[in-house]
Amino acid sequence: MAVSMPSIYLVFTILFWCHERTHLMASREENNIASSSFNILKESHAIREILAYETVARLDHLGKVSDAENYLERTFLSPAALKAGKLIQDWMIDAGLNTWIDEIGNIHGRTDGSNSSAPALLIGSHLDTVIGAGKYDGALGIVTAIAAVKSLNKKGKLFRFPRPIEIIAFSDEEGIRFQSTFLGSAAIAGTLSTQLLSVRDKSGTTLRDSLHQASLKGSEESLLHLKYDKFAVWGYIEVHIEQGPVLEFKKIPLGVVEAIAGQTRLKVTLQGLQGHAGTVPMLMRKDPMPAAAKAILHIEELCTKRGDDNEKASSHIDSTAQLVCTVGEISSWPGASNVIPGQVVFTVDIRSRDDYLREETVLKIESNIHNVARARALSYNIERKHEAKAVKCDSELTHRLKAAAKSGISKFLDSEVSDIPLLTSGAGHDAMAMARLTKVGMIFVRCTGGISHSPAEHVLEDDIGAASSALLSFLEHELDLLDS
Amino acid sequence: MAVSMPSIYLVFTILFWCHERTHLMASREENNIASSSFNILKESHAIREILAYETVARLDHLGKVSDAENYLERTFLSPAALKAGKLIQDWMIDAGLNTWIDEIGNIHGRTDGSNSSAPALLIGSHLDTVIGAGKYDGALGIVTAIAAVKSLNKKGKLFRFPRPIEIIAFSDEEGIRFQSTFLGSAAIAGTLSTQLLSVRDKSGTTLRDSLHQASLKGSEESLLHLKYDKFAVWGYIEVHIEQGPVLEFKKIPLGVVEAIAGQTRLKVTLQGLQGHAGTVPMLMRKDPMPAAAKAILHIEELCTKRGDDNEKASSHIDSTAQLVCTVGEISSWPGASNVIPGQVVFTVDIRSRDDYLREETVLKIESNIHNVARARALSYNIERKHEAKAVKCDSELTHRLKAAAKSGISKFLDSEVSDIPLLTSGAGHDAMAMARLTKVGMIFVRCTGGISHSPAEHVLEDDIGAASSALLSFLEHELDLLDS
Repeated sequence: MAVSMPSIYLVFTILFWCHERTHLMASREENNIASSSFNILKESHAIREILAYETVARLDHLGKVSDAENYLERTFLSPAALKAGKLIQDWMIDAGLNTWIDEIGNIHGRTDGSNSSAPALLIGSHLDTVIGAGKYDGALGIVTAIAAVKSLNKKGKLFRFPRPIEIIAFSDEEGIRFQSTFLGSAAIAGTLSTQLLSVRDKSGTTLRDSLHQASLKGSEESLLHLKYDKFAVWGYIEVHIEQGPVLEFKKIPLGVVEAIAGQTRLKVTLQGLQGHAGTVPMLMRKDPMPAAAKAILHIEELCTKRGDDNEKASSHIDSTAQLVCTVGEISSWPGASNVIPGQVVFTVDIRSRDDYLREETVLKIESNIHNVARARALSYNIERKHEAKAVKCDSELTHRLKAAAKSGISKFLDSEVSDIPLLTSGAGHDAMAMARLTKVGMIFVRCTGGISHSPAEHVLEDDIGAASSALLSFLEHELDLLDS
Repeated sequence: MAVSMPSIYLVFTILFWCHERTHLMASREENNIASSSFNILKESHAIREILAYETVARLDHLGKVSDAENYLERTFLSPAALKAGKLIQDWMIDAGLNTWIDEIGNIHGRTDGSNSSAPALLIGSHLDTVIGAGKYDGALGIVTAIAAVKSLNKKGKLFRFPRPIEIIAFSDEEGIRFQSTFLGSAAIAGTLSTQLLSVRDKSGTTLRDSLHQASLKGSEESLLHLKYDKFAVWGYIEVHIEQGPVLEFKKIPLGVVEAIAGQTRLKVTLQGLQGHAGTVPMLMRKDPMPAAAKAILHIEELCTKRGDDNEKASSHIDSTAQLVCTVGEISSWPGASNVIPGQVVFTVDIRSRDDYLREETVLKIESNIHNVARARALSYNIERKHEAKAVKCDSELTHRLKAAAKSGISKFLDSEVSDIPLLTSGAGHDAMAMARLTKVGMIFVRCTGGISHSPAEHVLEDDIGAASSALLSFLEHELDLLDS
């Protein structure tokens, strides 16, 4: 992998440089939203510097802080993660925040505002990455939050903010190192199982040892102690790249998340009778392969119908909120071209913001697999590997974030958007864990081609500026409320 | 693998011992063919000893000559293959044959009969095995041929045979070691490419070196020189286990092969757009997985229809001759449960005795994949990895082998079969290579559950006796023609 990454990276870099140029030209010429960016300055030049140029430079900088030489990899408490944490801490200080690292490695930056005893507004995202990552997933939310707070500070308004603001750069969301999810945010939300302390990474190091190596206590108490008091928290907001194609399709830089989809993950095993591909007549076979094919087609049909009730070109984009189903992995055993497989195994990933719809879909999928197996005298097994309920974002926060996004676009890009799209997040986020503690809201930022978890992940500079600007608008709106 | 083989082998041994008892009882009680075996002796006790007991003992013996400790593996010129060759040579000598090893490692045993200059009858099969093999595939054809010739000799008839008889134990049919097919029989037929001398096995040894290590010349000339003059050959016959379930279904121990199916092997690649399983709406996906499912279902439907024009329970077994299609291997890339695959690759194996039907089927499959890909805006690639034409067995030989099988069953099992089934071999055999040299004919022997290439491969003792007896009947018929 290491051998081929440089060339892959180079190809992606060139391709996406070209893509971005085309995209930028297209967005400037065709898309009236971004048409006159940087021409009319509603924010002062200094603030624009912070919101866009500095933020982009910091993302580029963070994107180079990697444990691998030729691609981006920054996992929980790795050397690169510690280095990135240090950078983020410096930027937090630069923004006017008091900082510390907590016992799970999260980086915190806090200001008391005008009332240190009021419930705090938390803003965050994660500093870890997948392997061969893009530089926006996670980092964007941290860096834009710092930019917004720094801008507020530069405008001399930070001390007037009616409650504490705390930015948290979570140490683990992707869960690459310990095959976990949300170590950082779950600890803050108080839902982290301390049993995880004994889980080992690939090299055999336990989570406890990894904490010790980073000079952290690594005790059960130290982790349990991380839990925030819910009365000390006002709410949690997060900026994140969309990781999907909807905003690009709609030609709007920002969207607001209404809900984070719940998820069921199935592992389906169909068992038939292995045989010689040349000698067993078609009607004497118990071949699990066409049975799997039948099940997979049914899954697509089921989810496409429910995911897209309305077939009109534009409306089917919104209805994605409803339901998405994916068969991502499939294998046959023994897996030879001249052998009728004895077994086919495949995975099904079902997500919906509607937990009832998701469960109904899972039951329909299971029942269809039962019927397919029965009709072909196959045996089967369906394992539920993972189950997570949907999280609804807070409606008041969502309403405010919509206004902030609209205002951010207007102020930074000098263009008006008739309506900010409400989206369902199909991916999990720290906000999902934080919802166990407090009300949550999220802003999504358009990304090129919907691509994420890849060196080809890309966000336009203008859109980064609009995102920082939206967060700043969100904060300023609180002050406006105070003034009015 | 080595660790688990003993227990697997043990389980199989126990299961199939049970299976055989049940089967034997069933076949004795329900099946009038095998009902009174060993009761009425149409052959003398001594001849029955040779045809069945000794043959079974020799198969058991050969089944233990393995390069692996706990399962059967005997590849081209391996230590076990050389040891097996030595055993076979001894048995050939015991049968009254002159023996030699040729320059590709085939073991020959020949008698001149009454006319050494007449074209010879060749009888053969292969001594190599797959990995984790059964003890009948290949070995059965060699050992039954030796039993038939030895019986003829014991009856004092061998010297009267009107033409030379030559048994050949081919050194390679499975092609495991050099990923080749038919090294032994292709050399005799004169179709072996000498370029293969430079091909390497997994350990890096070339075919040339492997020949040197067995004290063979390993030169191009030595291989080319192996080709038999077609005027010196009368025909080739081979006994082989069916490796399919048809004879067991029909409750008849022997069948005769009318044709060996031609084969096309495709590698199909469907290319879509990789994406996040949670964030890309169903109608914005270019997912190759359901497209592959659609193609696989079409393949099954197409081949089942053409393979089984008549839906009556018994007739669909015969029509297997027509067409069989198998998708044996499938994989997705990147192959993660939460990623919409960017690519799905699968194999298609299409076999038919009718080359036109096979080609028509391949074209229909290709055209359907084209349509499926087009409808979903996917790109695709179809690679033809392998292509072999069908081989028709000689009708006169087939006719004689049918009579011989009927007579063998009658003489050895004392039961009458109304008709010997004519089968299509879906698997390739040495007869396929030998057909390039001379007319060929094959007898298939019933095997338990149609299972082959497995330690669970099994042939009933009675059926082994019937097979040897059929070969003996074939030889005696030649003498009868002489006498009449």
